Amino acid sequence: MRMSNRISGFQCSPIRRLSPFAREAVQRGIRVYPLNIGQPDIKTPSQVIDAVHNYDEPIIAYGNSEGRQELRDALPAYYKKYGLDVKSEDILITTGGSEALQFAFMTLCDPYDEIIIPEPYYTNVSSFANIAMVSLVPVTSKLEDGFALPDISEFEKKITRKTGAILLCSPNNPTGYIYSAEELTQLLKLVKKHDIFLIVDEVYREFCYDGKSFSSVLAFPEYADRVICVDSFSKRYSMCGARVGALISKNKNVLESALKLAQARLCPPDIEQVAARAALDTDDSYLVEVKAEYEKRRDFIVEGLQQIDGVKCSCPKGAFYLVAELPVDDAERFAVFMLKDFNLDGETVMVAPCEDFYVTKGIGRRQVRIAYVLNTHDLARAVRCIDAGLQAYRRDVLKETI
Amino acid sequence: MRMSNRISGFQCSPIRRLSPFAREAVQRGIRVYPLNIGQPDIKTPSQVIDAVHNYDEPIIAYGNSEGRQELRDALPAYYKKYGLDVKSEDILITTGGSEALQFAFMTLCDPYDEIIIPEPYYTNVSSFANIAMVSLVPVTSKLEDGFALPDISEFEKKITRKTGAILLCSPNNPTGYIYSAEELTQLLKLVKKHDIFLIVDEVYREFCYDGKSFSSVLAFPEYADRVICVDSFSKRYSMCGARVGALISKNKNVLESALKLAQARLCPPDIEQVAARAALDTDDSYLVEVKAEYEKRRDFIVEGLQQIDGVKCSCPKGAFYLVAELPVDDAERFAVFMLKDFNLDGETVMVAPCEDFYVTKGIGRRQVRIAYVLNTHDLARAVRCIDAGLQAYRRDVLKETI
Repeated sequence: MRMSNRISGFQCSPIRRLSPFAREAVQRGIRVYPLNIGQPDIKTPSQVIDAVHNYDEPIIAYGNSEGRQELRDALPAYYKKYGLDVKSEDILITTGGSEALQFAFMTLCDPYDEIIIPEPYYTNVSSFANIAMVSLVPVTSKLEDGFALPDISEFEKKITRKTGAILLCSPNNPTGYIYSAEELTQLLKLVKKHDIFLIVDEVYREFCYDGKSFSSVLAFPEYADRVICVDSFSKRYSMCGARVGALISKNKNVLESALKLAQARLCPPDIEQVAARAALDTDDSYLVEVKAEYEKRRDFIVEGLQQIDGVKCSCPKGAFYLVAELPVDDAERFAVFMLKDFNLDGETVMVAPCEDFYVTKGIGRRQVRIAYVLNTHDLARAVRCIDAGLQAYRRDVLKETI
Repeated sequence: MRMSNRISGFQCSPIRRLSPFAREAVQRGIRVYPLNIGQPDIKTPSQVIDAVHNYDEPIIAYGNSEGRQELRDALPAYYKKYGLDVKSEDILITTGGSEALQFAFMTLCDPYDEIIIPEPYYTNVSSFANIAMVSLVPVTSKLEDGFALPDISEFEKKITRKTGAILLCSPNNPTGYIYSAEELTQLLKLVKKHDIFLIVDEVYREFCYDGKSFSSVLAFPEYADRVICVDSFSKRYSMCGARVGALISKNKNVLESALKLAQARLCPPDIEQVAARAALDTDDSYLVEVKAEYEKRRDFIVEGLQQIDGVKCSCPKGAFYLVAELPVDDAERFAVFMLKDFNLDGETVMVAPCEDFYVTKGIGRRQVRIAYVLNTHDLARAVRCIDAGLQAYRRDVLKETI
């Protein structure tokens, strides 16, 4: 019996598809530094864990489809700290930012509609587009430019009558680029001109380095009716496994439409929402410290990688990823090699090959995304592994071609 | 800016779309008996809550896309109690049974493919079909027959080259019908003959009354390669808000395909999976007592409703719903009336109108689904309200037509 054609064409996420190799390496006693996935090693704030421990419902019952009211009511105060006017009725709690993206696609786009997206982008967006039967239309940013936003004209060229939205992530996964207020303004003018939406994934909002301030798409009230913001508790409070996010919009049609999808899956997970509510009471110092730690890690990994012969990497301004181009033919082949065939003193790394972070075939073939989510000691070990691994790989590849 | 055509055509779930009316009634000080939604009032087992309180991960981290290993490893012992051979590798943990249904649709069906389903069915299945762009092809069961499985020839007539699967729910939501081993065998022979799948939602597995035993689709190893079972912790252990379910199949292609979808949304909620693992250690006496309580409620509500003039209702054999036909023109109009315009001594009920539990228009227009999830004292009050409400409604309706 055949599976559907669509699932046969569906990607296995490059972030996770090498996991079997990693597990086998671990079974062989190899320590694998996980640079493939944005899973912080930072402790979840203690009041979040306390809230879980004090969960006092006698029945773990269905909640509202739009999310627990006390969570929706508490979020506006968080946004207000950023000078953003968000009301509880603008917020639909989702099962992770992942679900908010899926809801956005389904509410705005019909099958075969298009969404314009700078590439490289967060690879799982391809899967959400696939589920919604929406085409991703890329605007290519380049490592040499620090993955800066391409000229606005590049976006305008791609707009057709099938375009539903432009989708950004800022601070960006995987590039670390942060869109400025001016850039957002240009994009908002563009979407208004063409009567489409701008969706911005802001899950890394706090992670802005070098003193750079963050500009949120929610800071433009004059465009509010064509804006969707995707948010999440995952990265901010190191609670990725909680699966609590949000779809935010002042466009009532968007929320009413998304609510239909929310009702279909009933409600987000209850205990995790209680945990998320507690997260909002985390002292600001937690976020300040976490950001400082990631900035330190960013500095460390960039310096380390740039010292490796043949490696080119961007210096990301935010989030906790970077895209590095390696002196290899095929980054996925190299990534598998690192897990299957290599170790340095019993250690190796797992990275995410970037081919599938692009729509355009080939551009990412020699690139990897590295999540600098480990402490600097482990990052140092990881960089050693990458350096030695590249040398071993190139020797092996050369050997094969002789 | 327009929303997508598809979302405009998407239903607001009849289980929840009257919630605004219910909230307003509550605000007016009316007590609303919630018979609209399968939300048990039974306490979640204490070891589940204890497990939440003892959650000991310092980081609420992403887990495996297929679910926590200890949960997948513990489930086979549960199925073994039913004589069912299920291994951990046959199991994909999902975010509720809802997600398992969505995964099943996406892996088996391409857009415009078909799934055959007895109607009335669990209404949210329409939404999952809509998301997957799959058509539901109904085979109608009738209240007069106790919603018995129609003749197998009725299913065979509906099979086309676009058919991906037949989907059942047993014990059935909303009818309470339980498919026998003979009926499952007939259906399995049929799906084998036509090279399609049989998907069975068994989330109400324990809730079989009148000494009736349950036949699982997992009990037919000779057909295992074309079977998908959808399961959930929600109803069994009164933990609907946890959102933990499972897609089970011995067909490796199905699981590998569903894993792609699972990777896209990253992982199920972590704390709730820990809770679910603990649920499996619940003493069998809990389930025995819960079942006895529901059987008592079933008897109570059926007797109560059958005494109301003009009400016809099935006597469900399992699950915790029944479908009742009311002496009204339009059950949704009546359901709204009960919330907006009626109360009996400050009390009323919320029910789910059945029109959208059918593909075929009109059949369910005078029917409601009642979830007998309240204790018998509250069910008695609810029945009083329905009785008086029907009289008041019919007076109002008559008044309007004069």
